[in-house]
Amino acid sequence: MPAAAQTRKAKSARAATGAPGAAPILVDEGMWTLDNLPVALLKKHYGFTPTAAWVELLQKASVRFNDGGSGAFVSSDGLVLTNHHVALGQLQKMSTAEKDYVKEGFFAGAAAAEIACPDLEINVLQSLENVTARVRKATDPKLSDKDQNERRKAEISRITKESTEKTGLRSDVVELYQGGEYWLYRYKKFTDVRLVMAPELQAAFYGGDPDNFTYPRYALDFAFFRVYENGRSVRPERFLRWSKDGAAEGQLTFVTGHPGHTDRLMTLAQLEYERDLGLPLYLEIARRRRKDYYDYAALGTEQARRSKDRIFGIENAIKAVTGEHEGLLDGALMKAKADAETALRRAAAASKDPAVRAAKDAWTRIADAQKKFSARRLQIAYRRFDGTKVAALAAQIVRYVAETVKPNEKRWEEYRDSNLESLRFRLFSPAPMYPDMEEFLLARSLRDALDILGPNDAFVKAALGGRRPEAVARELIAGTKLFDPEERRKLVEGGEKAVAASKDALIVWQRRLDPVYRAQRKWYEDEIESALSAEGKKIAKARFAVYGKSTYPDATFTLRLSYGKVAGYESGTTQVAAFTTFYGLYDRALGHGQKPPYDLAPRVAAARGTLDLSAKLNFVTTNDIIGGNSGSPVVDAKGEYVGLIFDGNIPSLVGRYAYDHTRNRAVAVHSAAIVEALRGIYGMDALAAELLAG
Amino acid sequence: MPAAAQTRKAKSARAATGAPGAAPILVDEGMWTLDNLPVALLKKHYGFTPTAAWVELLQKASVRFNDGGSGAFVSSDGLVLTNHHVALGQLQKMSTAEKDYVKEGFFAGAAAAEIACPDLEINVLQSLENVTARVRKATDPKLSDKDQNERRKAEISRITKESTEKTGLRSDVVELYQGGEYWLYRYKKFTDVRLVMAPELQAAFYGGDPDNFTYPRYALDFAFFRVYENGRSVRPERFLRWSKDGAAEGQLTFVTGHPGHTDRLMTLAQLEYERDLGLPLYLEIARRRRKDYYDYAALGTEQARRSKDRIFGIENAIKAVTGEHEGLLDGALMKAKADAETALRRAAAASKDPAVRAAKDAWTRIADAQKKFSARRLQIAYRRFDGTKVAALAAQIVRYVAETVKPNEKRWEEYRDSNLESLRFRLFSPAPMYPDMEEFLLARSLRDALDILGPNDAFVKAALGGRRPEAVARELIAGTKLFDPEERRKLVEGGEKAVAASKDALIVWQRRLDPVYRAQRKWYEDEIESALSAEGKKIAKARFAVYGKSTYPDATFTLRLSYGKVAGYESGTTQVAAFTTFYGLYDRALGHGQKPPYDLAPRVAAARGTLDLSAKLNFVTTNDIIGGNSGSPVVDAKGEYVGLIFDGNIPSLVGRYAYDHTRNRAVAVHSAAIVEALRGIYGMDALAAELLAG
Repeated sequence: MPAAAQTRKAKSARAATGAPGAAPILVDEGMWTLDNLPVALLKKHYGFTPTAAWVELLQKASVRFNDGGSGAFVSSDGLVLTNHHVALGQLQKMSTAEKDYVKEGFFAGAAAAEIACPDLEINVLQSLENVTARVRKATDPKLSDKDQNERRKAEISRITKESTEKTGLRSDVVELYQGGEYWLYRYKKFTDVRLVMAPELQAAFYGGDPDNFTYPRYALDFAFFRVYENGRSVRPERFLRWSKDGAAEGQLTFVTGHPGHTDRLMTLAQLEYERDLGLPLYLEIARRRRKDYYDYAALGTEQARRSKDRIFGIENAIKAVTGEHEGLLDGALMKAKADAETALRRAAAASKDPAVRAAKDAWTRIADAQKKFSARRLQIAYRRFDGTKVAALAAQIVRYVAETVKPNEKRWEEYRDSNLESLRFRLFSPAPMYPDMEEFLLARSLRDALDILGPNDAFVKAALGGRRPEAVARELIAGTKLFDPEERRKLVEGGEKAVAASKDALIVWQRRLDPVYRAQRKWYEDEIESALSAEGKKIAKARFAVYGKSTYPDATFTLRLSYGKVAGYESGTTQVAAFTTFYGLYDRALGHGQKPPYDLAPRVAAARGTLDLSAKLNFVTTNDIIGGNSGSPVVDAKGEYVGLIFDGNIPSLVGRYAYDHTRNRAVAVHSAAIVEALRGIYGMDALAAELLAG
Repeated sequence: MPAAAQTRKAKSARAATGAPGAAPILVDEGMWTLDNLPVALLKKHYGFTPTAAWVELLQKASVRFNDGGSGAFVSSDGLVLTNHHVALGQLQKMSTAEKDYVKEGFFAGAAAAEIACPDLEINVLQSLENVTARVRKATDPKLSDKDQNERRKAEISRITKESTEKTGLRSDVVELYQGGEYWLYRYKKFTDVRLVMAPELQAAFYGGDPDNFTYPRYALDFAFFRVYENGRSVRPERFLRWSKDGAAEGQLTFVTGHPGHTDRLMTLAQLEYERDLGLPLYLEIARRRRKDYYDYAALGTEQARRSKDRIFGIENAIKAVTGEHEGLLDGALMKAKADAETALRRAAAASKDPAVRAAKDAWTRIADAQKKFSARRLQIAYRRFDGTKVAALAAQIVRYVAETVKPNEKRWEEYRDSNLESLRFRLFSPAPMYPDMEEFLLARSLRDALDILGPNDAFVKAALGGRRPEAVARELIAGTKLFDPEERRKLVEGGEKAVAASKDALIVWQRRLDPVYRAQRKWYEDEIESALSAEGKKIAKARFAVYGKSTYPDATFTLRLSYGKVAGYESGTTQVAAFTTFYGLYDRALGHGQKPPYDLAPRVAAARGTLDLSAKLNFVTTNDIIGGNSGSPVVDAKGEYVGLIFDGNIPSLVGRYAYDHTRNRAVAVHSAAIVEALRGIYGMDALAAELLAG
């Protein structure tokens, strides 16, 4: 299942750069921004022309789940539909040893029974505005890379601050086409979001990790929230009407959502780094993390319950990145990338425009920066404690008070005024943390850092001071009050002085680690990011000059539209059907003798005799999606809701680097399955009626 | 679907030789002869020891379908159960433009409605006797390879003739372990076999070619015959009792049947020939043949009806051989083969026994013979007219009268006394042939021969005499009376004189071709076969000396037993269940929108509401099988009938060369599905009751 959560947020050399691979766009390829839809391609291949009203409907009915996912308004009463696995983090936070909504599901029969999520923020895109000229004007190409980088960041911070002040909307400047364009996106923000309904994990995630990223599938991976404002459910400006029949074979389908991250414009040198070092290192760490979670879960039933969303997340990430890595090991893909790069380099070198010719050495310089980054990759990767939630909150508090005293444009991006409200919302979340779990995972992270980086690494020294990781973790967790959101609030509101005076063990510890982190980040920004950014921009300019703006930018967890059609595909020597039905769910369960992960949730097992088994359950389309698109609506040409994206098949994983036009498939829950399950399995006829009424 | 029909019967260098690759036997590997069951392995891995009575039950309840397949007696009243695709050839022959049993199925409600097959012979193995010493004694190692070959063949012909005369049983001498052993197998022969029941092709071959050799599957690939003798149904000496529950997960399973051909003991040089030349050439010709059949079928509805069994057969062969070829392209497999060969060569060279050391140069000599064969491979492969049935019959008549005047031991094997009855049964078959189809396919074969071999090839010259293939085919078919079985009988009974005097166009033509064929066959026997045979025997001797008789011989379309268990497996990243159910059949049909080949036969569609959908439909086991095993019973430790072999999965195809112990699976129809379908789909409650009563 793709979810933005799986995309690595750690700073790495690839995060801020890119280079062209502008092969001709394939049919159904692309995650298009709403300002530059593939109108000619849609007309040519499907005879379809989007109207302004249609685009606005999709824009305003689509929502972003800020902890990593997508969704859509599906009723006039603020009902939002997304995936169960997007809701999973909140479900885990709402659950207790006594009431496990992850395992049992959650079913609010009436508005009063809906429960508020502890820290879920939802955004709805209101407008988008091209600010490329203003950003560009603020910098001077004659300055050093480092100075240009700083000026650009400062200007962006001014733009977002002004916008927030003027409109009251969350305002983000998004870099597209590796710096070829900058756009101001404004969002309406909702933080009173309540859970309405979620199936049992076993029904939603049927087939578990083995079936994840595969097809055929039989998953009820959906969940409903309702958005409130001022204590009342909102009337959304737009919502998607429910299709009477749902997705049909061969039908033109659109997906709107928030793909998290792609690397389709990486240079060959960057792809080689990812293939040979970056992804293997990521997988190495993820496997350690997986072991940590499983070891903790093995301590008891309650520990197992607490670990469920983390285990899901890490398994999901490992399977996705393994698929991406296999994609890069494919010689044909690398050859296509190399050919495209050579073609663009030649075209740039032959240009009459000196600004385009300036790209001539950009690829070499990016390769150099990448090489410089490689040398410190282990350090950057293993200096971490982010298996632990409370230690990460402590770090954020220490950084928050230090950053927010600076002028807005001098701060790190994440501490600028326009982000502070969302950040505080998360910092003061009442979501539960478990001291024994935090200690266990902190000790494991620190043990890894010590083992891999050695006792003389600056981070290891500051973190351990020569002591055993297990002892340090025990003391830190025993000596912190930060499990209490009020304690965190007091420190943040007390500012630098309060933090400096704090004797809380984790705050003291983070004060010691902060200089190490700052030095590393400064090195990255000055030495790597600024070079990648400057050279990436030259390549972007060359690409626009050579190919025009006929393509789409890499994914940035902002609203995109993809198009495609409902279609089965070949796998091995056989044919995979476009649809599965409820028949297939029972076949798979019985064929496996109901052994986990193929056992049936009790409500699902009980419904076997009464359900319409011929109802379509899951289906596949050729739409181009990636992690972050989870929960995206699949809509038809009329803009009606026909399905709910929840996954991609194995051949879709290479989509991080290139779209496989023969076998890439997005996997969705059919709209008919949602209604059938609500009525036939969960007895939620009123909720089904709300969908059908719109 | 494996069927012996797919194994190539054309003479080729690999047919008569072999060499060791005696890797240790893997769990569940092997197609064991009944005289050498893997008793120690069964005891060690499954705690099971077969009794003599149990072995006799399996031996005498198992039947061989001589046109390529296996089956078993399943009632006291002579009922035989096999695959629909084993029955397909007979069904096609029984059908007419008016009554298409292939499409509509066949359902005899009572004995009187059962119809006799035109030319089906069934064999039941009565005894097996080691005649190695006698065969060996008849030859003298000091003679030339060619003379040894002739003497051995003569002795074998004497053994079979004596046995037939003494016992009245069909008697075959089988060469095992590439000449390491010779065994006399005696069969009871039945030629009055009547069709009782066959589902519609669409139910039996559900999913068509795309799903063939894949799993999960949803095929009702079964058919029932009843064996008669003297106008009354036979009381078989043994039959298999029906299991109450059928196959269960993890259960120990046995398969008895007649695997057609494996090449597990080929030398590396032979495997390389197959990989680089042999299999690609086979596939090239098969694809031409496929095109011929499809082109003929496209001429009209009736032509399409007539072509169904041929199209099934050629598609099946292409898919199987493609899988085998992919197996040989696997470097790891070839490396394992090379390592095993090196180990045996070293062990042989180090032996104190001069007879074992004699194998030293055998591998080199086999490679030389293989090379010599390669040079004429195109000629041997393209000098053919076997798409045409009537021309092949004409060739057999011409050869029959010429061979049968010789002393028995001087004849080609297939014309020796012990084979003549079965041969005449086929020669005088009343099965229909269609002149337009025969002409069409004969013209295509001759066109290929002309195009590939050129006008100066001896065969092409004799066959065409410089004329166009189409014109020659037209004249030959228009000028023959051999479509009438009585005409064929007259010629055979008239002997050499009648054939020499015949003015039948095809007989005249075959008289012209006969010398070309005889010269080619003589070259093959004297130059290739005798060398491969002599050297293969040396290697066989070395292998027995080094490894003992701890292994099983390559498949020879004689009775074998394989053992294994019911088990799912991993495919890609996911788990394939051991079982499918009827739920899955309807899921697959609806998921594909009932598009062919996933449409439901009308009776199957109609039964959806009343069938027990949770009944197990198909399942997989680890048993080691190959083409020819189609129709084999799967029995449990009690010797009860739990399933019906009908296919192997894709990873099983490499089984021609090596057993894949991780993913090899045999695919079977579950015994419960057969009963459920008889009652719930076909309303044949009496037949179901006969099974359950035994």
